[in-house]
Amino acid sequence: MRRRVQEGVQRVHIARPETPLQARLLRLLRDRGPQARGGLAEVADLSRTRLGAELDRLAVAGLLEVRRSDAGRHSATVDLHPDLRFLGVDVGATSVDVGVTDGRLRLLGRRGRELDVREGPAVVLDAVVALWRELRAEGRAVELHGAGIGLPGPVASDEGVPVAPPLMPGWDRYPVRDHLVRALGCTVVVDNDVNVLALGEHHAGAARGVDDVLFVKLGTGVGAAVFLGGRPYRGATGSAGDVGHLGLDDSAEPCPCGARGCVEAVVSGAALARTATAAARSGASPVLARRLAAAGRVTARDVAAAATEADPEAVRLVRESGRRVGRLLATLVSFANPGLVVLCGGMTGLGHTLLAEVRAEVYRRSPPLATGDLPIVLSELGTAAGLVGGARLVSDHLFAA
Amino acid sequence: MRRRVQEGVQRVHIARPETPLQARLLRLLRDRGPQARGGLAEVADLSRTRLGAELDRLAVAGLLEVRRSDAGRHSATVDLHPDLRFLGVDVGATSVDVGVTDGRLRLLGRRGRELDVREGPAVVLDAVVALWRELRAEGRAVELHGAGIGLPGPVASDEGVPVAPPLMPGWDRYPVRDHLVRALGCTVVVDNDVNVLALGEHHAGAARGVDDVLFVKLGTGVGAAVFLGGRPYRGATGSAGDVGHLGLDDSAEPCPCGARGCVEAVVSGAALARTATAAARSGASPVLARRLAAAGRVTARDVAAAATEADPEAVRLVRESGRRVGRLLATLVSFANPGLVVLCGGMTGLGHTLLAEVRAEVYRRSPPLATGDLPIVLSELGTAAGLVGGARLVSDHLFAA
Repeated sequence: MRRRVQEGVQRVHIARPETPLQARLLRLLRDRGPQARGGLAEVADLSRTRLGAELDRLAVAGLLEVRRSDAGRHSATVDLHPDLRFLGVDVGATSVDVGVTDGRLRLLGRRGRELDVREGPAVVLDAVVALWRELRAEGRAVELHGAGIGLPGPVASDEGVPVAPPLMPGWDRYPVRDHLVRALGCTVVVDNDVNVLALGEHHAGAARGVDDVLFVKLGTGVGAAVFLGGRPYRGATGSAGDVGHLGLDDSAEPCPCGARGCVEAVVSGAALARTATAAARSGASPVLARRLAAAGRVTARDVAAAATEADPEAVRLVRESGRRVGRLLATLVSFANPGLVVLCGGMTGLGHTLLAEVRAEVYRRSPPLATGDLPIVLSELGTAAGLVGGARLVSDHLFAA
Repeated sequence: MRRRVQEGVQRVHIARPETPLQARLLRLLRDRGPQARGGLAEVADLSRTRLGAELDRLAVAGLLEVRRSDAGRHSATVDLHPDLRFLGVDVGATSVDVGVTDGRLRLLGRRGRELDVREGPAVVLDAVVALWRELRAEGRAVELHGAGIGLPGPVASDEGVPVAPPLMPGWDRYPVRDHLVRALGCTVVVDNDVNVLALGEHHAGAARGVDDVLFVKLGTGVGAAVFLGGRPYRGATGSAGDVGHLGLDDSAEPCPCGARGCVEAVVSGAALARTATAAARSGASPVLARRLAAAGRVTARDVAAAATEADPEAVRLVRESGRRVGRLLATLVSFANPGLVVLCGGMTGLGHTLLAEVRAEVYRRSPPLATGDLPIVLSELGTAAGLVGGARLVSDHLFAA
C-alpha cells in the first residue's frame, strides 16, 4: 500500500475528499486518531456498507489506509495515510519558523531563524522555502499536502494577501498565497498570525475542547482571536481581533504605525523593552543597567530575568505591563464574554507575575457575570502553536470538501 | 375557527410546536407572512402529505389557520393564528414601555410611563403588569402567548434574573421571570435591554437580513449586542456586549457604579447632560443657559435642540460626544469586524452631527480591512425596537420546539 502511494506520489498527494462525508471521516481521524473499523461506522453514524465504500475511495486517493487484522474485517484499523504531511509557517515581526506535521498534526520537525519582516515578502518567503527544503533534506517529508501560514498583520484570507499591515512595509496586497503555491507545489492558506496560534492551541493546547475562547497574543505586536462555538470567528471581512492599533489610553507613546497611544505602543514586548531601556539608563534598575552595558540593548526577556532576580524596578515593570494588558483584556472579555482566555506570544515569558496582574485587572474591571468562572491561562504549546496551527489551518481547508 | 379557539382559550394558548419542523414552519410564517399552501411545501422542502399533517396539528393547537380558497386545496392560504399575541417589555433606566404584537410581531398597541428603575423590581414589574392591563382593556389582546422583557443590566437569561446590575439597586438575582410568569400567566423570557433592541432592529429595522451586526445603545446607559451569522451571540454566560463599565480612558469622571472613567460616565446621555449643565452654568452656551433657567435642568435632548439652533458650544458638545462614542466603537469594530453597525438609544436623537463624528473616528482608528464596506447607521425602529425585540425574544423561545 505504502509503496503504491509513493510511486504515484505526484498524483496522489494532491487528492482531496470528494464529499462532505469523506471530509468528516478525515477530520475525525485527524482529531481522534486511528479507529477500529467496526467502531467507526457507529461514531460516524453510517451503515457499514456505506462506510466501506467511502474508505475504499479515500484509500485509493492516498488519504488514509486500512490496516487489516487477523481478527477479521471489522477489527481492521483505519488511520490517516502515514505519508500525509502539512507545513505550518509562523512569520513573526523578527522571526520565521516552519514545521512539518503528519496528518494528525503532530510536529515531526521544525526549523527557524531570526528575520525582520520588514525585509519584505520576497526575502521572507524565500526564507520560508529554504527552511522547508532543509526539513525535506532531513527526510521529514517527501511532498507536502498543504501549507498554512500566519502573518503578523491583517489578512484577506480568501484572497491570500495581507491588507494594509501596519508593521509590514512592502507587503500590502502582496500575493503571498500564490507565491507559496508556486514555490511549494501544494495548497496554501494564509491567515493572521493570532488566528493561526489560536487554531494550534485549540487543536492540541490550552483550549482543547473549549467552545468560546479568547486568544490574545502579546509579542512584538499585539492581537486577538476568537473561537465561537468551537470555530474561529473571523468577522465580516476576516479582520476580527485586530486590536493592536486601537487607542488604548491617553498616553502619548508613539507607535510605528504613525498614531499615538496604540495598544502595541503601550502593552507590547517592544513597549516593555523601551521602558526597560529607560529604567536601565536612569539607574532605576541596576540589574537592567548591567544587561544594557553587556548587550547594548534590553529586551522583554531581560526584564523577565531581572524580575526573577527580584530587581524591584523590573518587578514593577512586569506588574505595570500586566495591568495594561489586563485593561485591554477587560474590554475584550466584557464584550465577548468568552469561556476561557489564553495568552500567548513572547511576553508570556514574563510568567506568573504578569498573569497575576492581568487576572486581577480583568476580575476588577469586567462584570461579575462575565468573569465568574473565567480561567485566564498561558499558552501550552508556546512557539509550536503557530506551526501546529498552520497545519490545522490548511487541513481544515483541505478536509472541508 | 376563531370562535372555537376562544372557547378553549386557556388550553389552546399555551400550546407550543411539538417538533423542530413545526417550529420552523411557525418561524417561516412569522418572518415571511402568509403563504400559499402549495408554495409552502416547496419553501419548507416538505412533501405535501407531510406538510398537511403538520399544518393540521398546528391548527388544532391554535397556532395557525388555513384559509380555504375557492380555487382548490393547494391555493389555500396558511397564516399564523390571528389571535396570537406577544408582549414586548422595555425597562429603561427611567422608563417602562410595553407593547402588544400579533404573531408576525407587528406592534398593535403600546403604553409607557416614566419610572426610575431604582424604585426596585416590585414597583417596576407592577407597572409593567398595569400597563399590560390597560392594553388589554383597550381590546388589544385577550391573552398573551408570551412576553419578552429587556432590563438595563446584565441578565442570566437561562435563569431569568439580573446579575449584579450596576444601576439597578435591589434587582440583583431578583426572580423577574418567575414574577412575570405568575402575573401575566404566560411564558416569559428575560434578557439584557441591548440584546432585545438588537432583536427588534434585526427583525424589522435597520439590520433586517444582515448576518454580522454590532448594535450599540447610547442612552442613559451604554451597552452593545452582537449578531453573528444572523443570530444573537450572548457569550459563555450571556453577558457579551456588556461594555458600559469599562475604563474608556484616563478621565477621572466618576460613575454611579463606583469606579471612574467608565464608558457610561464618559459617553452616555447622562454624561452629556452633566457636561451640558456645566456649559449652561459657566455661560459658555447662552442657549443651554436659557434652557437651564426655564426647566431647572439640561438633558441630552436640550443639547440636540441647542445644536439645531447653531449654538456653538452645543455643537461642540455633540461633536465631542461623537468622538468619544467613536473611540469606543472603533475598539468594538476592530475586535468584532461586523458587517453593519446600528446605533440606538436616546442619544441618537443628536442625529447626523453625532453620526458624522462617530463615523470619522471609527474610520480613522479601525483597520481599513474592517471598515472598507462598513455602514454605520441609526436605528430605524426607535423606541419600538425594544417592544418588537421583546416579542421576538419570546417567540424565538416558543417557536424553537
